[in-house]
Amino acid sequence: MQQMSGACGGYPNVSIALLHHPVYDKNRQVVHTAVTNLDIHDIARSARTFGLSRYYLVTPIPGQQELAGRILRHWQEGWGATYNPKRKAALELVRVADSLDDVLAEMEVRFGRPAKLVTTGARIHPRNVTFGRLTELMGVREQPYLIVFGTGWGLTEEVFDRADMVLEPIKGPGEYNHLSVRSAAAIIMDRLFGVR
Amino acid sequence: MQQMSGACGGYPNVSIALLHHPVYDKNRQVVHTAVTNLDIHDIARSARTFGLSRYYLVTPIPGQQELAGRILRHWQEGWGATYNPKRKAALELVRVADSLDDVLAEMEVRFGRPAKLVTTGARIHPRNVTFGRLTELMGVREQPYLIVFGTGWGLTEEVFDRADMVLEPIKGPGEYNHLSVRSAAAIIMDRLFGVR
Repeated sequence: MQQMSGACGGYPNVSIALLHHPVYDKNRQVVHTAVTNLDIHDIARSARTFGLSRYYLVTPIPGQQELAGRILRHWQEGWGATYNPKRKAALELVRVADSLDDVLAEMEVRFGRPAKLVTTGARIHPRNVTFGRLTELMGVREQPYLIVFGTGWGLTEEVFDRADMVLEPIKGPGEYNHLSVRSAAAIIMDRLFGVR
Repeated sequence: MQQMSGACGGYPNVSIALLHHPVYDKNRQVVHTAVTNLDIHDIARSARTFGLSRYYLVTPIPGQQELAGRILRHWQEGWGATYNPKRKAALELVRVADSLDDVLAEMEVRFGRPAKLVTTGARIHPRNVTFGRLTELMGVREQPYLIVFGTGWGLTEEVFDRADMVLEPIKGPGEYNHLSVRSAAAIIMDRLFGVR
């Protein structure tokens, strides 16, 4: 069992994953989406700010994994590491993975027990857990958690079916709710781990 | 005085601005930063989700204004408007402006009184107002507000000096605090206007 040090008061038991597959496209077809530079940077910076353990970038496509690897190396070993050490500190959290199964298997080895899988989405779901309740649960540091975000038009039903918990959607004052995954991930991390 | 309808329970008295000038670079030089596609999209989608009035994109550089205009037209009039009407609804909030002065002048004409200027940044400031207090203040719909975000390494001291209020920084559990402006803007809007 990895030591849960939490030197800076963070959440060493919580990781996040961005799924590029399986997700829906606009017409509810299951697709692979492309890795984008800003999804890597923005979400890594949020994960570091909110004290999380790892940020898994999930795509089974070798060319996409190679692209992600090049971006990460630039900021961790290349010119970028010296130019912007703060960016390096954020990108150190990122791991590229083939599939959600691989992430969960890696976490089980790392923590000595299976992670609870938490999905996110823009719709109400029968198994919704509130932000407040999930923060409470995650306070028990012995239990690892993986919070999963979907690219494209969101996670497939298959992923929701596997989830231990489905996080309640973010709500603004009106009906419109079409945040980017970068914004939604930032807000969700702030609601769960932000200090007020 | 424009009617404050707020048909969907939003904040018709609150607008935001993203400044591409005057902002600091890494070495605290005052610079113009480049307009980026995702700053436009992500922040517009957040502003629409949280029921705000307008999103001003501020740059004095004609070529940059032209670029922003092309992106906006694509999604409002071009192929994009049909492909993704939700995106159109978000980008309808966007206005391109030459300067912060121009934005404040336009708002004064629109609302019949000067807007209160609220700046944002990652550091503690002597004139910090809390998120809770600012939400309360903004509940008075007769008073217009402009919340300003900086690109690059943040708004210059000159902009902070002009502010009526400086919003308290976002805090995670540790010392690291290097969110992207897209993530910071999303979190700030959620803390001020999100429904829980």
